[in-house]
Amino acid sequence: MKQHVVSALVENRPGTLSRVSGLFSRRGYNIDSLTVGETENPSISRMTIAVTGDDPVIEQIIKQVGKLVDVIAVRELEGASCIRREIILVKIAADEHKRQGALEIAGIFRSRVIDVSPSTITIEATGDREKLEGLLILLRPYGILELARTGLVALERGSLMLSV
Amino acid sequence: MKQHVVSALVENRPGTLSRVSGLFSRRGYNIDSLTVGETENPSISRMTIAVTGDDPVIEQIIKQVGKLVDVIAVRELEGASCIRREIILVKIAADEHKRQGALEIAGIFRSRVIDVSPSTITIEATGDREKLEGLLILLRPYGILELARTGLVALERGSLMLSV
Repeated sequence: MKQHVVSALVENRPGTLSRVSGLFSRRGYNIDSLTVGETENPSISRMTIAVTGDDPVIEQIIKQVGKLVDVIAVRELEGASCIRREIILVKIAADEHKRQGALEIAGIFRSRVIDVSPSTITIEATGDREKLEGLLILLRPYGILELARTGLVALERGSLMLSV
Repeated sequence: MKQHVVSALVENRPGTLSRVSGLFSRRGYNIDSLTVGETENPSISRMTIAVTGDDPVIEQIIKQVGKLVDVIAVRELEGASCIRREIILVKIAADEHKRQGALEIAGIFRSRVIDVSPSTITIEATGDREKLEGLLILLRPYGILELARTGLVALERGSLMLSV
């Protein structure tokens, strides 16, 4: 089953998020990641939902999302024509003996060290899923203490747009 | 009213997102941003919720979130002791005459140009809310065609952790 990326423009009102996510959960679909934030128009938010499942069922759910009263536009973004990004913040165990090695890995992945304590380093990295997974594989031997990921955000390439 | 950042570790199951976001919307609180993604343990997700509201009411909602069956831990992250980051993808109108100016702004904010078409440029930028708002102010005169933001993700500094 493949991961689908669904982008939706919605009215920025209480309850919209709960209704949209409820449509997926009632079908037994677990959302891999969901991000929601304001667009340039503060009354409209953009949701990006990543969900793994069968193509026909996902298509049905997208149609149902489109019928919700607070949903202005919704579309699946196809792989090659869209840009996908995510941030992770990852806190690893690294004392003074291990710090140098961890800094080198951060450098190779062009990620940023945003906090250092006597026993920990916190790294911020952005990229697509594959790049971030590659970074985590190298950091795992240090011991990953905390990991926060935003989930995917995506836009179509070039002048394609999800219109209001 | 100030913006609160709430971090929660939850079971990675269908319906959890809908139940958590429903607790806010039933009180009439609109979530400014919400991100949810897997942690190192794939059965556990971390949610980061940014919400603006009165302190006592937010505290009550956090307590109610903590009582939900799928919620493992929940805490408000206080400003100075946590690191907050967000990605935005922003697509602006920029033809060949305007491209150079837009690239300079991207450079000043250490953001990355991730797509260029004859009439558009798409930029990826990460940072806290103030930095990203500063970038958007400079890009607005070009015409912002699309904006996708992940919403905040946050971790506590140093060795502090939200424990399972």
